[in-house]
Amino acid sequence: MNFTINKEIMLNNLLVAQKALSTKTPAPYLQGVKLEVYQNELVMLTSNSDISIKLSVKHESLSVESTGEVLVPGRYFVEIIRKLDGDKVAVSVIENNMLRIVAGNSDITLNMMNVDDFPQIEFLMNDNPIRLDSKVMRSIIRQTTFATSVVENRPILTGVNIRVDGQRLVAIATDSFRLSQKVVDIPMNMENMNVVIPGRSLDELIKIMESNLEEILIHLDHKSILFEYGNVLFQSRLLDGNFPETSRLIPYEFPIVIKFSKNDLAVAIERASLLSSREATAAIVKLYLRSDNVVEITSNSPEIGKVVEEVFPVDKAIGIPIRIAFSAKYFLDALKTFLSDQVFVKFTGEIRPFVIEGENDPGLIQLILPVRTE
Amino acid sequence: MNFTINKEIMLNNLLVAQKALSTKTPAPYLQGVKLEVYQNELVMLTSNSDISIKLSVKHESLSVESTGEVLVPGRYFVEIIRKLDGDKVAVSVIENNMLRIVAGNSDITLNMMNVDDFPQIEFLMNDNPIRLDSKVMRSIIRQTTFATSVVENRPILTGVNIRVDGQRLVAIATDSFRLSQKVVDIPMNMENMNVVIPGRSLDELIKIMESNLEEILIHLDHKSILFEYGNVLFQSRLLDGNFPETSRLIPYEFPIVIKFSKNDLAVAIERASLLSSREATAAIVKLYLRSDNVVEITSNSPEIGKVVEEVFPVDKAIGIPIRIAFSAKYFLDALKTFLSDQVFVKFTGEIRPFVIEGENDPGLIQLILPVRTE
Repeated sequence: MNFTINKEIMLNNLLVAQKALSTKTPAPYLQGVKLEVYQNELVMLTSNSDISIKLSVKHESLSVESTGEVLVPGRYFVEIIRKLDGDKVAVSVIENNMLRIVAGNSDITLNMMNVDDFPQIEFLMNDNPIRLDSKVMRSIIRQTTFATSVVENRPILTGVNIRVDGQRLVAIATDSFRLSQKVVDIPMNMENMNVVIPGRSLDELIKIMESNLEEILIHLDHKSILFEYGNVLFQSRLLDGNFPETSRLIPYEFPIVIKFSKNDLAVAIERASLLSSREATAAIVKLYLRSDNVVEITSNSPEIGKVVEEVFPVDKAIGIPIRIAFSAKYFLDALKTFLSDQVFVKFTGEIRPFVIEGENDPGLIQLILPVRTE
Repeated sequence: MNFTINKEIMLNNLLVAQKALSTKTPAPYLQGVKLEVYQNELVMLTSNSDISIKLSVKHESLSVESTGEVLVPGRYFVEIIRKLDGDKVAVSVIENNMLRIVAGNSDITLNMMNVDDFPQIEFLMNDNPIRLDSKVMRSIIRQTTFATSVVENRPILTGVNIRVDGQRLVAIATDSFRLSQKVVDIPMNMENMNVVIPGRSLDELIKIMESNLEEILIHLDHKSILFEYGNVLFQSRLLDGNFPETSRLIPYEFPIVIKFSKNDLAVAIERASLLSSREATAAIVKLYLRSDNVVEITSNSPEIGKVVEEVFPVDKAIGIPIRIAFSAKYFLDALKTFLSDQVFVKFTGEIRPFVIEGENDPGLIQLILPVRTE
């Protein structure tokens, strides 16, 4: 195996491939990047327990003297390529299972791993993938994944449930204290699907969706889901089990509705959470709609002090005065998902889940369970 | 106590004062900021085991309704002031030893600490302080402090030795594996001084020297040193004991001198240290001046691989071929202190300390002890 390629092309593709590198693993071969060199193509493969990535590089700068395949230690290889000088890099296999990397004034020899240890991975493509606007896919991930559970006692809740039903796609995440739901219309009829994708996989997927490609293609299999984005194949395992039926959790009639400036509300909640005696991420604040149409956001920690913030709703609030307590972090997380400058906070009662919607965020609902106090 | 002041003025001064806040301390009162309010002056005081800070704020926006002094929990107070909206903030004492802070739409009440618990601190000023150009003081700190010892078995080496002798100031730091020395001329005859200032104190001092004041004044006492920088008094304890006599450690004749581009040399060392099997901070690299006037920077970790970097000296090197091994981190730390684009690396022998000097860094010497290998 012996090839040269533009250094930046090599690096940019490696930086995508490394998203599936294992950092700690009982299987050291999963810390490697597999390089497959063909006459006109360089393929990079990485895999960990959640995701596998395959990149096909067919760049004009690729010049292959001899083909072959190797498994190189991922972390060292990425760091070397990142730090190299020069426009191009020459990579070749030399004696004793060593890889030689030459660029600029650098001559580097790297011990390789046994390429036969790397697992055979099937990237399962079908003929009729779902095609989604990349922007839509990014917003689905950004607006739902944060609400997945991070504790593993109900593994199904660590994933995002994605259902396609005709021309409607619904994405739902919940950790049982809050719920995010995004509904998007898709341009053409697709095959129905109902899968649960690990939130961590989606967090990695969004990181590699940085080029300005318009479309992402989704290939579905019963055990895995494959995203095709330009020259990248990104495959994730699916979570087994039934995602809870959440539709009945979301109220549809709201006797109390308050319209806020998103920013005014966020800074008030941030300040109110400053004096919490709990960890900052566990601060509880209270919202009180006064009869004079001013909203108080308050917190009180007897050993530290108390905060009273006045927030003026954008319009006259609908409904009667209400007092409700909630996690400041959950509320702020939810607010961040809206593009709108103005949001509606909708209540059904003081101990009932409440909902946030954005003026210009069609299809997005954030639901939060209140906290009982005193 | 009851006053109002411009919020940004309050915050900017608090951010200086908080540099001497204790984070973990058996004495909770050292986690507080003492505020002393006089008719036309707000004084902030903080202190920890190393340093004490006193700020005098006499801003046109300060409006004092009633004077007094309080001790407020530092971390919460700083965070509150940082996050407040509005141009001005009103601070007053209310019943039950509470501090009330009002700004914009926020109304915050903070439990106070017992002001009598805060220690009496004397800030010892004398009539004839040493006056130093602020830029010079910053470069002394930046170019020496990093070389102090971080282990406490020889406490004196955790400090920077500063000696003034007539019109010469010498600053020296060493952890016994490397040594930094900066000599500056001072414009007028000063009283002699020979003190050792904790490196940590100087690290904090440089952080508050951000305004563009031309001068810093140094008041010396036998137990402490007081820096006067605008409206800030910054006092540090001194370290007891004798700083080692280092002048004989620095060679003055160098049979081998190589002139490098600082950047070329730094990137070669960085790359050579990539494949170290040790922690990145403990990587050892070798320098080899070949007879063809090319310098090789190499490293070799049998279990990972090896790196050979060629670096071309700026001029023909003086002296015979040499091989020497050293800590990559120590060399890179030293290189960073030079403003010069080109540096001289000067050797007396393969197992003798070597020296780095900059083309345009008069008075600055970085000395490094080589490492024996094989």
